[in-house]
Amino acid sequence: MKGQLFVICGPSGAGKTSIIKEVLKRIDNVVFSVSCTTRPKRPHEVDGEDYFFITEEEFLRRVEKGEFLEWARVHGHLYGTPRSFVETHIAEGKDVILDIDVQGALSVKKNYPNAVFVYIAPPSYSDLKERILARGTEREADILVRLENAKWELMFMDEFDYIVINDDLQRAIETVLAILTAERSKVSRNLDRIEQFKMEVKGWKRW
Amino acid sequence: MKGQLFVICGPSGAGKTSIIKEVLKRIDNVVFSVSCTTRPKRPHEVDGEDYFFITEEEFLRRVEKGEFLEWARVHGHLYGTPRSFVETHIAEGKDVILDIDVQGALSVKKNYPNAVFVYIAPPSYSDLKERILARGTEREADILVRLENAKWELMFMDEFDYIVINDDLQRAIETVLAILTAERSKVSRNLDRIEQFKMEVKGWKRW
Repeated sequence: MKGQLFVICGPSGAGKTSIIKEVLKRIDNVVFSVSCTTRPKRPHEVDGEDYFFITEEEFLRRVEKGEFLEWARVHGHLYGTPRSFVETHIAEGKDVILDIDVQGALSVKKNYPNAVFVYIAPPSYSDLKERILARGTEREADILVRLENAKWELMFMDEFDYIVINDDLQRAIETVLAILTAERSKVSRNLDRIEQFKMEVKGWKRW
Repeated sequence: MKGQLFVICGPSGAGKTSIIKEVLKRIDNVVFSVSCTTRPKRPHEVDGEDYFFITEEEFLRRVEKGEFLEWARVHGHLYGTPRSFVETHIAEGKDVILDIDVQGALSVKKNYPNAVFVYIAPPSYSDLKERILARGTEREADILVRLENAKWELMFMDEFDYIVINDDLQRAIETVLAILTAERSKVSRNLDRIEQFKMEVKGWKRW
């Protein structure tokens, strides 16, 4: 059975990163795709774990070679998903999680219509606004860009397959785990197994 | 939000009834649709809980009045799903589980294409055969009918949305729970909520 590509989106401040980190701990056979970015590394971030931090020149060289499954400029910086990591793991039967923005998700949807698109939403926009303001670590101009971006992203929810409203972190984590588990039971992902049953019933045993 | 109809199928002996009983205990807002049947009540069965046991005459009168959402003759007896129970609960926002045979499921699919179809499968046909023979409570003729029916039912797996292979009862229960949970997060089931977000973002607050 091939793996499945899960694209997880949602405005920054909705709790996406915390949810994904916990999900990865609690379920087997899922890997996280680390994106490349040209934005500067923040103090707590680890190169190769949170992102691969590369120069704009290097980024554009990789774009040219077709090495990104999707890429986009967000808040002035470039972000891209390395294609080979995703494709290798899916071929090996692993599920792959992408944490990307809505723009990137829509672009993945064009090339991988069978991917599963999950939107992590805040309980409301005003709640998200409070969360972003409460952080208090950013310059006002950055906050305004973030809010404007969140508004834009919230308008695209219905392009997704699932929406998980993060009004309770534990429940949101469990819902994302349920989505991964349910998707593995889709008939379309078990056609080999179903074929085996048919062969056995017809008397052409293959077990 | 309206409720969702879940049709759970699978050959007898695959463990469907045990799974459904446990699922109903562990998740809120789900009701079980009790079928009507003309087959004789078995000693451990409770009228109105396992089935509504009615006469063939009464059954056919209800067929005539359109009171069944689906009905079928299986192993010589009539089985039917009362329509009003299902429709009332779905309108009230409850999920409804139907435990019916493949023939009934295919007939529901025609009228309710948006229902969710789950197939509970044994690990293999030979495993199912062993389980049925091991019961040792039935006449040989009944066993042969049951095996023949199981073979027939196994050929229709790919008409379903999900397949849950019951090689481990606890895991099968958790998978069915995950399917119910995931389905509640489908964007198509949360359009009202998404509309609220859009109104708020556009400044027409409706919360």
